Order: sequence, then C-alpha cells, then structure tokens
Amino acid sequence: MSNQSNECSSCGEMKEGTCGGEKCSAPPKLYPGGQSKIARVIAVMSGKGGVGKSSVTSLMAVNLRKMGYRVGILDADITGPSIPKMFGVKRVPPNQGLLLPAISQKGIKIMSLNLLLESEDEPVIWRGPIIAGAVKQFWTDVNWGELDYLLLDMPPGTGDVPLTVMQQIPVDGIVVVTSPQDLAVMVVKKAVRMAGIMETPLLGYVQNMAYFSCPKCGDRLEIFGKALAKGDTFDALPVLEVLAIDPKFTQLCDNGRVEESDINAFEEIPNLLKVKSQVS
Amino acid sequence: MSNQSNECSSCGEMKEGTCGGEKCSAPPKLYPGGQSKIARVIAVMSGKGGVGKSSVTSLMAVNLRKMGYRVGILDADITGPSIPKMFGVKRVPPNQGLLLPAISQKGIKIMSLNLLLESEDEPVIWRGPIIAGAVKQFWTDVNWGELDYLLLDMPPGTGDVPLTVMQQIPVDGIVVVTSPQDLAVMVVKKAVRMAGIMETPLLGYVQNMAYFSCPKCGDRLEIFGKALAKGDTFDALPVLEVLAIDPKFTQLCDNGRVEESDINAFEEIPNLLKVKSQVS
Repeated sequence: MSNQSNECSSCGEMKEGTCGGEKCSAPPKLYPGGQSKIARVIAVMSGKGGVGKSSVTSLMAVNLRKMGYRVGILDADITGPSIPKMFGVKRVPPNQGLLLPAISQKGIKIMSLNLLLESEDEPVIWRGPIIAGAVKQFWTDVNWGELDYLLLDMPPGTGDVPLTVMQQIPVDGIVVVTSPQDLAVMVVKKAVRMAGIMETPLLGYVQNMAYFSCPKCGDRLEIFGKALAKGDTFDALPVLEVLAIDPKFTQLCDNGRVEESDINAFEEIPNLLKVKSQVS
Repeated sequence: MSNQSNECSSCGEMKEGTCGGEKCSAPPKLYPGGQSKIARVIAVMSGKGGVGKSSVTSLMAVNLRKMGYRVGILDADITGPSIPKMFGVKRVPPNQGLLLPAISQKGIKIMSLNLLLESEDEPVIWRGPIIAGAVKQFWTDVNWGELDYLLLDMPPGTGDVPLTVMQQIPVDGIVVVTSPQDLAVMVVKKAVRMAGIMETPLLGYVQNMAYFSCPKCGDRLEIFGKALAKGDTFDALPVLEVLAIDPKFTQLCDNGRVEESDINAFEEIPNLLKVKSQVS
C-alpha cells in the first residue's frame, strides 16, 4: 500500500488527522477468530444507501450456497443492519469465549449487530471509530469455522467502516452495487475511487433496480432512469448482474424467507475467485 | 437532557467511550456563522439509506420557497452528498473569512461538501468525528444570512452526524422519511427512537416511494410492499406526505432541475413551525 495517494507522509496510514505527525505504523491485517479458515472474502459496497447492497449480498449468499459452498455473511452495517430480518434469524447461539454466528435454515452463517440487541429497532448511537471497532470484532472475535466465502455487507458512505475493512480485513474483491439513477452513480463512483486509493481489488458491478415489468400489462419500465449501457460507467469495470425490481423478492426479504428466492445469479463468482468447492 | 437512557454516568454526554470516566460537560449548542439569523431548523432524517431523504429535502425546500420563505439547505451527508447535483449548483461564491453558500436559480442557499471538491465523484475518506466536524463547520463557519427555514439533509445511520446535530445544533423538528418496505421501517424506527433518546422533537413522517402508476395501463403498483396504513407505524407520529415513485421527478433531480418540479407538498410545514413569513 506504499503508493496510496492519500496516505500520511509521516506514518503511511490514511490521513485521518490522528497521527499528529508522529511516526506510527499502518494498522495490521487482522486474523479471523479462533480456528476460522476463510478462503475468500468479498465486500459488497456501494457508497450510496438504499441501492440494494443487502439484497445483493443475500442473493449472492443464497446462490453460492446452492452451488454447495460454505458461506457466511458479516453484516458490517452496524447502525442499519438488514441481514437478520431477510434470513429470519434472531439470535446467536450461546457461546463461551468467542461469539458464534447464527445459522440460517439453509446453513449460511450470519453475524450482525441486530442479533445482539434486545429488540431489532433499538438504535445504536455510536461514533464511527466504535462502529468500525464492532466490525473488526465481528472478524476477530467470531468463530466462523471453515468457510469458502465470507460476504461483507457494507454500510453506505466512505467513512470508518469501509476504511477499516479495506485496511485491516484481507478483502479478495469488492462487488459494487448501483441503481441506474445518475445521482446514485455519482456517489457510487466515490466508492469505486476509494477502492482504487486503498488498492483493494474490484470484481465488478451489479446494476440493481434496473427496470420493472408491470404485472398487468407487461410493459418494461425504467423507473429510476435509463439502464446503464455496458462499459459507459465505472470505466472498464465488468457488469456482474443486471437485476430488475422484483416485488416478490422484496416480500421474501421482508418475511425472512430470502432463501426461498428462485432468482439465479452470480454463477460467475466462483470463477472470479476460485476456492476448493466443498459440499457440506 | 438529564434523563437520557444512554448517557454517560460520568459526564452526562452520550456514551462514546471517549470521556474515560473523567468529569466533562456535554457539548454546547453552537451558533450559526457570522450575523446569520435562522428562524427554524428542520432535520430530514431516516436512519435508512436510499429512501429519499434528499428528494424530500429538495421538495420541501422548493415548496417553502414557492410560498415565499427564505430557505437554505445544509447537506449533512458528507460522504454521499446529493443536493448540489439536484439543484444544478457547482461552486460556492468566492469568500473572505466565512464560507458563503451557493445560491440556486430560485434563491435557495446551499452548502455541501461536493461544492468544495475538485470533482463531484471524489471520495471523502474520513473517520466519523471528522465528518461530524465538517457538518458543525457548515453551521458555524458559513454566513447563511437571514433564513426562515434551514433544512438539514441527514446521512443514513445513527452515528456521528445525527448525534452531533442533535447535541449541538438547535433542531426545531425532525421529518422522518421511510419507504413502505418492512426492512426500511425497522431501520427507520431506530432513528425515531434515537430522536426520543436525544429529546429532539419529531414533526411527522413522509411515506416515500409509496406506489407507482404504470404510465401505460394506469395500474397502481405497490412495488416496495403494501402502503403503510395510517397510525400503524412509528406510534402516533403524524403522516406529513405520501409520495409516489415519479420518474419525471427522478429525471429533474438527475438533471439539476428539481426546482422545476410541479409537485405540491409540505404546505403544512409553516403551520407546524411558524415563522414570520417574508417574501424576498
């Protein structure tokens, strides 16, 4: 990470106004908790809120699981966690020492702050470094066991959590999510540029909410603006999926039954980031 | 603020893990920059990303301006700022000393981090307290002049920015934005509960993206789930507006022409938060 354009000339860390010019070392990469063996880490990121990061994360997890991989989801959206509700999980198993992830019906391992709260709508009023600390703990203090893929569902923005994740968790690739709206694309570009600065590899992008088919007349409606043409956005970043607005999928998510989705997607992920496939 | 359930027993401030048990005072309310006189401050908040906080902020600003009020927008979404693009403003005026807000075609004053960046897709990779510091500066170091209403477009989450805004900026009322999706409502409830803990008054909520009318067959489609019934969400919080998904409005936002919108909304705001109306 020696060529980062934003790095502090004194300590090599990203500029945060915290090192005060004194010599200090960049934060180290962290190891996952206990005897965890995690082959591949994928971060699902956007910069923009509400474009479907959690939907994409869930859909990717469900499809990788269908292919026989051992999959986990680390919900890095501490103040707005969606993953537990989508999978219908409410509590983590009792533990001694390290935390254990909840396990979904189909066997996906999940850790989220909402699994540790008394009620799902309890607010977490924390400052950014504490929030980023919780994400680090979900990596270092959770016994994930053996996983082929761990998916990180990132919060909006380019603040503490993406910064800490890109600095300290060995992310193999970022999947970028956008909607076709110009305004969304502008903010998503910030996240793409952040990944470049942090030298974290980008796998490609997902165009979510690309269109909607009217269930009555069948007309294809580009509700959030004209679908992005291949190659005209995010430079040469490959398109991984183009996903429609799907009220049936929304309902499955709202009802904790996202694993019943029959949308086939993300078949290419194992080719982009190979692991020794194991059905468990 | 003596009854806050989350307050630090040592210093009375919200728990942040920063006071270390030493006696310290809660942060003071701040005054706006220069000779600014701001009659009313409204924060547009959600907790959830992508439900339309910036659209609601813009629509409210445009309608208040039409009614003859002097209106400003403080874009508190530092890492994902949308307001300048919606209003087609790009730079702040040259200044000596205090910053001056940009002024839209119809005379709305705007301050946003994107007005201070070289390019609109440049990422701002800052930790939370620095981000919250920028929002404070947009209040204390900007010469807003005389305003009837200043609208704060808040970022997603319940972290640094909403915490600092509710602690240090004299917010008269919060407008909460949600979409009908259960998942969104769950996260929005966190923001509503945060406002309660911080004792910041709530004006009501806006149900955004409530439905979509197919332009071909006219069918009313509840794309993001069944519209919320009056009174069944957020307890007794009044409904301020129910807004449809409107591709024409989306396009105006994408093209920097939000002020040309003919959607009439938020007529009740001046009754909820009275100011001496002045046409300028």
